Amino acid sequence: MTFNENLEKRRIHAEEIISQYLPKEDAVPGKLAEAMNYSMLAGGKRIRPILLEEAYHMLGGTGNCAEPFMAAIEMIHTSSLVHDDLPAIDNDLSRRGRPTTHAAYGHALGVLSGDALLNYAYETALKAFTMDVDSERVLQAVSVLAAKTGMYGMLGGQSVDVENEKNRIYSLDKESLDYIYLNKTAALLEAPLMVGAILAGADEEQIACMEQIGRSAGLAFQIEDDILDVTGTEEELGKPIGSDEKNDKTTYVTLMGIEQAKEEVFRLTEDAVARVRQLPGDGTFLEGFLRSLSVRTK
Amino acid sequence: MTFNENLEKRRIHAEEIISQYLPKEDAVPGKLAEAMNYSMLAGGKRIRPILLEEAYHMLGGTGNCAEPFMAAIEMIHTSSLVHDDLPAIDNDLSRRGRPTTHAAYGHALGVLSGDALLNYAYETALKAFTMDVDSERVLQAVSVLAAKTGMYGMLGGQSVDVENEKNRIYSLDKESLDYIYLNKTAALLEAPLMVGAILAGADEEQIACMEQIGRSAGLAFQIEDDILDVTGTEEELGKPIGSDEKNDKTTYVTLMGIEQAKEEVFRLTEDAVARVRQLPGDGTFLEGFLRSLSVRTK
Repeated sequence: MTFNENLEKRRIHAEEIISQYLPKEDAVPGKLAEAMNYSMLAGGKRIRPILLEEAYHMLGGTGNCAEPFMAAIEMIHTSSLVHDDLPAIDNDLSRRGRPTTHAAYGHALGVLSGDALLNYAYETALKAFTMDVDSERVLQAVSVLAAKTGMYGMLGGQSVDVENEKNRIYSLDKESLDYIYLNKTAALLEAPLMVGAILAGADEEQIACMEQIGRSAGLAFQIEDDILDVTGTEEELGKPIGSDEKNDKTTYVTLMGIEQAKEEVFRLTEDAVARVRQLPGDGTFLEGFLRSLSVRTK
Repeated sequence: MTFNENLEKRRIHAEEIISQYLPKEDAVPGKLAEAMNYSMLAGGKRIRPILLEEAYHMLGGTGNCAEPFMAAIEMIHTSSLVHDDLPAIDNDLSRRGRPTTHAAYGHALGVLSGDALLNYAYETALKAFTMDVDSERVLQAVSVLAAKTGMYGMLGGQSVDVENEKNRIYSLDKESLDYIYLNKTAALLEAPLMVGAILAGADEEQIACMEQIGRSAGLAFQIEDDILDVTGTEEELGKPIGSDEKNDKTTYVTLMGIEQAKEEVFRLTEDAVARVRQLPGDGTFLEGFLRSLSVRTK
């Protein structure tokens, strides 16, 4: 099996797990459930559930307690996309080739279905509490999930990014840019790796190692976005290119030039891979996956 | 001490607990923390934290593990108000005599600070995990909190209410109206009573009894709103009166007339009070509090 075949197999498996945990649409409130599922089933690479499951298996997890967390992390990610697309923030009417949730279901359900997905992520993760796993691990996993999602994680990074745009603050130093990238993007890659490790019974050092892997990979991923915005195609980037330059935004490319930005992606990816090798278990797939995430340019 | 003095003492105590758990504004992301605290410190009766603490003490709780949950339930309630006020839903520019969060901080922070408050509620509640209380109780309490908040609780009720308004469906049967009232309003009164009981180590029957108390009290509270919309003053209702009639909305008053609606409030309040008397512990304050919540008309 090639790496790409393996990746596709895991993506399909993640889709199946996610589907099992989606709300049913045949009961009240049906329209809310429909809007939630509409955004959850819009496709996507399922990067976070795949990372979570791989971290769990790699560190020796053999049960099914990672499954509700795989669905939960995708709900959190999706919730943030639904709210980002709202007129109040990015005002996007289309995502992945179809109408965004608020474009399809109205602005009110755009807000409420994002709220309900965020909340349902916790309802879903807590289902692991009834599974065959130590309760302390479930509590620690939920705590990490919440911390990486919240104001000191993803939502904090988003808020600073959005406030800068609103106030037309485009010129940032590296420290401010890193704050945004590490929180807006890396936090929600750190979370699945840490949660997988925690559920598998990893020790503090291994959990911290997973956090660092997510941190390096997340930063590399975001810098690669900066590069693709200049050198890539819309297909490679997954959204229209050239928007950073149009908006005069500070990026790694404007801060250090394309060549050095590419070196930074390479350095961070190698850092993540080297840390994978410090962990027990077979890291072959995780290494390949991390490389595929960050180095998308040739 | 009169009942009102006692109530005021408890409200002030709840304010102090809430303040202790609010995010700090001196670190990044300061603007997000400011917007969160702006809505949290807008006043309010702190009904839910008071209910939570009273249920905890009444059923024998003596520690401080209820405190993070008191702050958490108020964060959830506040998050729902912040999002309700958004242009996407009610488009309200003023609440409790000052600008709503999005009016003061912009639409983007209106969305994101509501998200961050909802998420921070879970981050806060999970702090009880490190306190001197059985972890299983914390997990059960967080699960109840999430279930009553989510799509099968408050957010479900809100979504149906909002969808009906959008589609100009004003004529509802009693069952549909009860679905909205029980979820939009009662669910978030059931939650604090149940959480307080769970943290105090109550048994299943006592927890179910607390749920029923919240259910009856919540429904009574909402029917009283319907009555005050017709017979009350803006001060009594806490918002402009006459809006139901203006909007041709189905309410308990339109369904059964004012006199029978008043009888329903009385019946439900007595039901809640009778259930309080089935529980161990001194229910004097809780009885008085429930009466003061639902019977606001003379």
